[in-house]
Amino acid sequence: MLMSALKPLGELENAAEFQARHIGPDAADEAAMLSVIGAASRRALIEAIVPASIKRSQGMQLPGVATEAQALAELKAVAAKNKVLKSYIGQGYYDTLTPGVILRNILENPAWYTAYTPYQAEISQGRMEALVNFQTMVTDLTGMAIANSSMLDEATAAAEAMTLAARVGKSKSTVIFVADDVLPQTLEVLRTRAKPLGFSVQVGAAAEAGQSECFAALVQYPGVSGEVRGLQALADAVHAQGGLLIVAADLLALTLLKAPGEQGADIAVGTTQRFGMPMCNGGPHAAYMACKDEYKRNLPGRLVGVSVDVHGNPAYRLALQTREQHIRREKATSNICTAQVLPAVVASMYAVYHGPQGLKRIAQRVASYTAILAQALGERVANGSAFDTLEIKTGAATEATLAKAVAAGMNFRRTSAQSVSVSLDETTTRADLAAILAVFGLSADLAAFEKGVATLIPAELQRTSAYLTHPVFNRYHSETEMLRYLRALADKDLALDRSMIPLGSCTMKLNATSEMIPITWPEFAGVHPFAPHDQLQGYAQLNEQLTGWLCQATGYAGISLQPNAGSQGEYAGLLAIKAWHESRGDAHRKICLIPESAHGTNPASAQMVGMQVVVTKCDKEGNIDLADLKAKCEQHAANLAAIMITYPSTYGVFDTHVKEICAMVKSHGGRVYVDGANMNALVGVAAPGEFGGDVSHLNLHKTFCIPHGGGGPGVGPVCVVADLVPYLPAHRSAGYQSETAIGAVSAAPLGNAAVLPISWMYVRMMAAEGLTAATEVAILSANYVAARLADAYDIHFSGNIAGVKGGGVAHECILDIRPLKDATGVGAEDVAKRLIDYGFHAPTLSFPVAGTLMVEPTESESKAELDRFCDAMLAIRAEIAQVADGVWTREDNPLVNAPHTAESLLKADWTHGYSREVAAYPVATLRRQKYWVPVGRVDNVYGDRNLVCSCPPMTAYE
Amino acid sequence: MLMSALKPLGELENAAEFQARHIGPDAADEAAMLSVIGAASRRALIEAIVPASIKRSQGMQLPGVATEAQALAELKAVAAKNKVLKSYIGQGYYDTLTPGVILRNILENPAWYTAYTPYQAEISQGRMEALVNFQTMVTDLTGMAIANSSMLDEATAAAEAMTLAARVGKSKSTVIFVADDVLPQTLEVLRTRAKPLGFSVQVGAAAEAGQSECFAALVQYPGVSGEVRGLQALADAVHAQGGLLIVAADLLALTLLKAPGEQGADIAVGTTQRFGMPMCNGGPHAAYMACKDEYKRNLPGRLVGVSVDVHGNPAYRLALQTREQHIRREKATSNICTAQVLPAVVASMYAVYHGPQGLKRIAQRVASYTAILAQALGERVANGSAFDTLEIKTGAATEATLAKAVAAGMNFRRTSAQSVSVSLDETTTRADLAAILAVFGLSADLAAFEKGVATLIPAELQRTSAYLTHPVFNRYHSETEMLRYLRALADKDLALDRSMIPLGSCTMKLNATSEMIPITWPEFAGVHPFAPHDQLQGYAQLNEQLTGWLCQATGYAGISLQPNAGSQGEYAGLLAIKAWHESRGDAHRKICLIPESAHGTNPASAQMVGMQVVVTKCDKEGNIDLADLKAKCEQHAANLAAIMITYPSTYGVFDTHVKEICAMVKSHGGRVYVDGANMNALVGVAAPGEFGGDVSHLNLHKTFCIPHGGGGPGVGPVCVVADLVPYLPAHRSAGYQSETAIGAVSAAPLGNAAVLPISWMYVRMMAAEGLTAATEVAILSANYVAARLADAYDIHFSGNIAGVKGGGVAHECILDIRPLKDATGVGAEDVAKRLIDYGFHAPTLSFPVAGTLMVEPTESESKAELDRFCDAMLAIRAEIAQVADGVWTREDNPLVNAPHTAESLLKADWTHGYSREVAAYPVATLRRQKYWVPVGRVDNVYGDRNLVCSCPPMTAYE
Repeated sequence: MLMSALKPLGELENAAEFQARHIGPDAADEAAMLSVIGAASRRALIEAIVPASIKRSQGMQLPGVATEAQALAELKAVAAKNKVLKSYIGQGYYDTLTPGVILRNILENPAWYTAYTPYQAEISQGRMEALVNFQTMVTDLTGMAIANSSMLDEATAAAEAMTLAARVGKSKSTVIFVADDVLPQTLEVLRTRAKPLGFSVQVGAAAEAGQSECFAALVQYPGVSGEVRGLQALADAVHAQGGLLIVAADLLALTLLKAPGEQGADIAVGTTQRFGMPMCNGGPHAAYMACKDEYKRNLPGRLVGVSVDVHGNPAYRLALQTREQHIRREKATSNICTAQVLPAVVASMYAVYHGPQGLKRIAQRVASYTAILAQALGERVANGSAFDTLEIKTGAATEATLAKAVAAGMNFRRTSAQSVSVSLDETTTRADLAAILAVFGLSADLAAFEKGVATLIPAELQRTSAYLTHPVFNRYHSETEMLRYLRALADKDLALDRSMIPLGSCTMKLNATSEMIPITWPEFAGVHPFAPHDQLQGYAQLNEQLTGWLCQATGYAGISLQPNAGSQGEYAGLLAIKAWHESRGDAHRKICLIPESAHGTNPASAQMVGMQVVVTKCDKEGNIDLADLKAKCEQHAANLAAIMITYPSTYGVFDTHVKEICAMVKSHGGRVYVDGANMNALVGVAAPGEFGGDVSHLNLHKTFCIPHGGGGPGVGPVCVVADLVPYLPAHRSAGYQSETAIGAVSAAPLGNAAVLPISWMYVRMMAAEGLTAATEVAILSANYVAARLADAYDIHFSGNIAGVKGGGVAHECILDIRPLKDATGVGAEDVAKRLIDYGFHAPTLSFPVAGTLMVEPTESESKAELDRFCDAMLAIRAEIAQVADGVWTREDNPLVNAPHTAESLLKADWTHGYSREVAAYPVATLRRQKYWVPVGRVDNVYGDRNLVCSCPPMTAYE
Repeated sequence: MLMSALKPLGELENAAEFQARHIGPDAADEAAMLSVIGAASRRALIEAIVPASIKRSQGMQLPGVATEAQALAELKAVAAKNKVLKSYIGQGYYDTLTPGVILRNILENPAWYTAYTPYQAEISQGRMEALVNFQTMVTDLTGMAIANSSMLDEATAAAEAMTLAARVGKSKSTVIFVADDVLPQTLEVLRTRAKPLGFSVQVGAAAEAGQSECFAALVQYPGVSGEVRGLQALADAVHAQGGLLIVAADLLALTLLKAPGEQGADIAVGTTQRFGMPMCNGGPHAAYMACKDEYKRNLPGRLVGVSVDVHGNPAYRLALQTREQHIRREKATSNICTAQVLPAVVASMYAVYHGPQGLKRIAQRVASYTAILAQALGERVANGSAFDTLEIKTGAATEATLAKAVAAGMNFRRTSAQSVSVSLDETTTRADLAAILAVFGLSADLAAFEKGVATLIPAELQRTSAYLTHPVFNRYHSETEMLRYLRALADKDLALDRSMIPLGSCTMKLNATSEMIPITWPEFAGVHPFAPHDQLQGYAQLNEQLTGWLCQATGYAGISLQPNAGSQGEYAGLLAIKAWHESRGDAHRKICLIPESAHGTNPASAQMVGMQVVVTKCDKEGNIDLADLKAKCEQHAANLAAIMITYPSTYGVFDTHVKEICAMVKSHGGRVYVDGANMNALVGVAAPGEFGGDVSHLNLHKTFCIPHGGGGPGVGPVCVVADLVPYLPAHRSAGYQSETAIGAVSAAPLGNAAVLPISWMYVRMMAAEGLTAATEVAILSANYVAARLADAYDIHFSGNIAGVKGGGVAHECILDIRPLKDATGVGAEDVAKRLIDYGFHAPTLSFPVAGTLMVEPTESESKAELDRFCDAMLAIRAEIAQVADGVWTREDNPLVNAPHTAESLLKADWTHGYSREVAAYPVATLRRQKYWVPVGRVDNVYGDRNLVCSCPPMTAYE
């Protein structure tokens, strides 16, 4: 019998299959790309691009490759170590029923989760409508004038409220009063954030707010142990002291309670978790922040506003962007540059789906059940009022009660050695009430279920004002209508499921389904962050494994996954440096050197930890000016705390002097912060912890495949060398405390815990070889784009490497549009908008250099898609040439008029100097597949002058 | 303390919330709709519409209402009773790895699963491209000339192949030879189907095929016990007898084996299950059928072909539709009118994702592992050749071996008292091999894994020909590319997630997410249909509960869920009637009366069971002509077998004489078959088993919320009165046998088992009250549409009820376009195509009456969507008036030119007598949200004349 040649089974088993699913170009594509670049091999290209001096000393020690099925099975076993008990812990995290239509069509739908931050307004109208719904929901329920489009968590929102109050208030006091029944994790983060700013946190009974001088007072409404107190008297007292009243309020409770804005509050914050987002071991959830109208221009975070497009139609866009840290740089007062868009969309849609009546019904049920529970518990109840939480006096039986509850499958909250509390939620049933009471040997009054029961909400605090009256909250209550609304919004937007998003510094790579699947497993999604440790062993193992792997990837000794955004990681890292200096008696070391090419978050973070920013220069190639650095080091030697660099730089340059730079700063007593934003150019190739970094943060939502979610959730782990490990963030209330820890920087011990499985899966499936290949292909792809576009555009900051077409760039390349603008009037923004007509999200616009476009293709884009993009850019270049040649005027050409809506193209009177077809189908493939932009170019100035941040009336569309 | 009024908790608990999620109109909408109709209340309307004589005697006895969360928890407990063991049973069902990107973006994505059968070609280009990929995959792998777009399962595909062979072959023989190693379930269905047609099934060793006269021979390739035999000699022998060779072939094996088409096979059939569809306890899976070119016009089932649109661009559409049963009626030779589109799409995309190299690698791994297993098992192996299956001689230890395997978490197949078999699949790992061998106390040769191993495929049967060479199978191998391809296809199509689909008789209602979630639970999706009964107790309970509930809904005594399409249920029901007559010595009773208004499936099914169709007349109102019926009954009294009626009729009419009709037929010795297609007008209101039906089939994919999936899966349970229960379908191999059963009608005992949870959830969440409300609102909504359109269109077959605007219809209404066509040349098809420009899928076109549109709104559409539809229809009516008034010519108007693609609207030379904006935006809301149709009107005739049913070359698009 004739047999075909034998093949080793390893080849047939194809254990590394996922690498080829994640990395776009295959071997043939790679060869073709190398040939365009003029490089002999991928290895040779990398050696030409990456300085030899920084190469890793050895490979990453990671587990061997796993297939998708193997990795899922392995992670399922890890997940199974979490125990999903019924939670009555409350404390800011409640069980909730995520409507199936929202679960499947938002949380599990790539059209939503792969979208980017809505900087390009025209292709982001869908998610911005969802965010305006969110803002409207928050302002309606809180009774405040304006709300932003989400915050990272309730605790950091409270901290931002503190700094807002400090900024806008008139008090000279440095005291912030905090009621003793705010959420403990909020207090913890406040303490962390107050210290470097020189604020002192004074804790007392809520009733004492305003009894002494303070610039702000923070109270919880209802309090963590359940009490519902009126706010007006507190507001009056605090105002009398010249301070502002910050109220942390529960949105579900606000459907029944008089709103903070109706009782004199100046700022309201809180979480929206219980509006449809699972507890997720603490995150991701959207927090909210709302304030009085007079503070709106000081409100941190992102704000979506209603403006008009060039045709005069209503259109959404990010409002007041000049407040953002990337514009204000050293003057920034907040480093926030990520929101929690995806959870905010979920929360807003939960409100859309239930509507005001539905939300109120849920709240009334919770409040009624709470009253029934209180009736049955009788004298044991400590609260005089309540919405959903009862503090129960258990005396000496406290531990026994908690244990009995656990044995019956429930977690109560231990509020003191003498008491526990029980918080009810949307999911609580009559059977649950019976089970709770059984722990106390009691049963409920069945008659109350039939007759109804009075809630424990004080009459004077019962809400009478309307909310959620806009039609959007009153028309999508059937599942069919809701489904279509979600689809209609998703269809307006351009996300990674339809097109490359070539955003420099944002790394829009594949978010693989196998990475996404685990995040909605109940074992990960269904646990409370402050459940007993023995119930969270799955997360403990996930944390241990993932931090271990990330240490391998970065060369650092210790990592905390707590920061729930890159900015938070940065902040935590700088705090660690600061704490280290202080531990050595060097508290005066406060100078932080930052190169002028840095991302605006860097100076903002430095400000927030109380450091003083000194800017150092860069040369023409985008490298740090060594002479200037040396001079600044010497000048500030006595007070030097740190340098913050990004590597490769935000210009996309591998500075060959990075080791020298690090050594220079260290020799003057400073520590080196390496911003990990561009880790996608390093993993497996070079490790910041090896080549000189003392601290880095990572962006798991960039390099490690957590999707951008339309602008969050992010995860920004902070990584440090050995002597800084004691200064990593910790969480007292969760027992993660260390003697020297800088405290908590996020509400939850593991931050946005529930998205960590994404990065776990990615590393597990790629293994060391795959991760390194991803880095190399990312660099290859950027160089391919540079090579293909080099004859048409100036490649800014290229390496001028001989023989490499395009000159050699790192993982991104900057196209300089300024010369073309001078010649034709067509600028970078016009190119960005014209790309929409070609079916692309624009590259990063005017960052880090005004008038340029920064392109980062990532390793996940196929050669076919890279070619489609390059073809578009070349066609656009030819269009610009038509303007230069006078075929089209500067004032009327397809670039300055872009993007073109279908409606504008179909008008009977076509008056442009180019045809409809040129506008719509500049390349033939668009005739077969075309993204139709829903609005024309959006007028930013109009929107900022006429600030509207809640749902526009329906008449706006008529 | 002042308290708000007490509310009973029941109101706050809102246990019936799901009813309001499922039913579109709320109370206020309902009031407004009733007012337009002129009815006092919903109850009053129903009483005016539904004949008092047929009203249910009592309500449905169903469990009390459950919320979505409760129902999911309850069903999870049922599911948990299934035991998911590792399956090595084979026998047509294999474990598989569904790529995550396919799972999430097809199987769990409403854009795919809520789509309808692609009758309206222009809005179905995406799924038809997927189906052409399917057809190409099948023809390539089988080496046959042409393949259809899927069959219900392998067994019924084999039965259809049998009848195809009988039709096209030249033999006069009535014998079909079946090899003894075909799948046992295939043999069982063949026996059922052969008997009424007078074919005799002769079973023998495969090698005996063609040794005696037969019109066809069926062999399995490879055989069920693993042997791989050459086909050429068998083909030659069968051909010499004047018969055709039918080969049931495994597609994965065909990547390595010489194709049936290369060895003289005339017809090939098989399942595509192992291409990414979980085992699902037997279904839904797409089977395939392919044949020689000369038989293509006789191929049953649906065929997608490539044609051109009015602009000359390539466009897909269903080919050769004149073969379909609804056209051929009594001449039909197959009653198939559903395919398994969703599973076919999954299978095709699995091939697209893996490509030829990937599939081959998987097959080589399976074959190599099988060889390693055989090496280790040595003398125990009975096969001389193998692909994936080994028959293992176990002698006296057979039962012990099976038990030992189960104890170790595996199922082997019991092939005889002396042997078992083991079938490997894509998911098998080295560890699995070790575990299998451990059952026998053996271990594998580790060296073979390193060096490779020769497979057990005979050299002369090793495949050398290429397959899947089209670019579509070679370009979407990264997950990013695959995701975008799926999105691009989905975006071309209009499904229920974007718009109402007002298809009369097709009931496109909400397919709620909570209903869909359980179907991909491993406990339902991961089990083999022939696993031991004690492992399938969850399905047993599901079956028991669901059939019990459906008995309540229909008034019948017994139900079988086995039929995997309505047509199969019909067939099974008629077989039951036939068997009953035979049991009474009345085998001669073969006359089946069918009213002329019937769906074409009815006569086709009657033909298939060997009955003789006699057509009875209908009157002008669509009611059965009683005088004619009486005459036919009397004429055929001696031979009367049955009458088949649809109720309410396909004209949407509640015939008030239905009880009389039933009684009349019974008095002449016939039984009454009530087609359940229109059960959505009856559930909770009237029960066919009460008002005179003896047998009905249901369409769970219409009335009971299983989505249409783009044209399948369907589920068509057959329901019977008590004396017919013994004649329900059964399944010998699964121990469901009864003495008098008619045998198996589907390959798997529970048919499309894995979608049954959808209907279970629906009934459980709606409860009796909700189901009745759904029926009533469906009727209300149809009457609302009729009332709103009555002044503009003739409502055909309305009830002329005084005071009811529109005259009163059942759950659907027929709009007669013929008078308009006469006056203006604008016909029903033009209206249907123009509706696409308005963003709607057309109503049912020219069924049951040519030149009409039949509209069924269902209960799930909101009043807003009904109004959007009515507004569109009224605007279209005004457009027709413009033609009548001579404003537009008969030859050039927006109706006859519809649908308008964006490309056609943007052409520089606009020569039409109406503007671009009139074409694109006939109503203002389209400016805000518009579905852009991807092709212009498709030329059906061109496609049938130039039949191309595989992927067109890329040059076709240039």
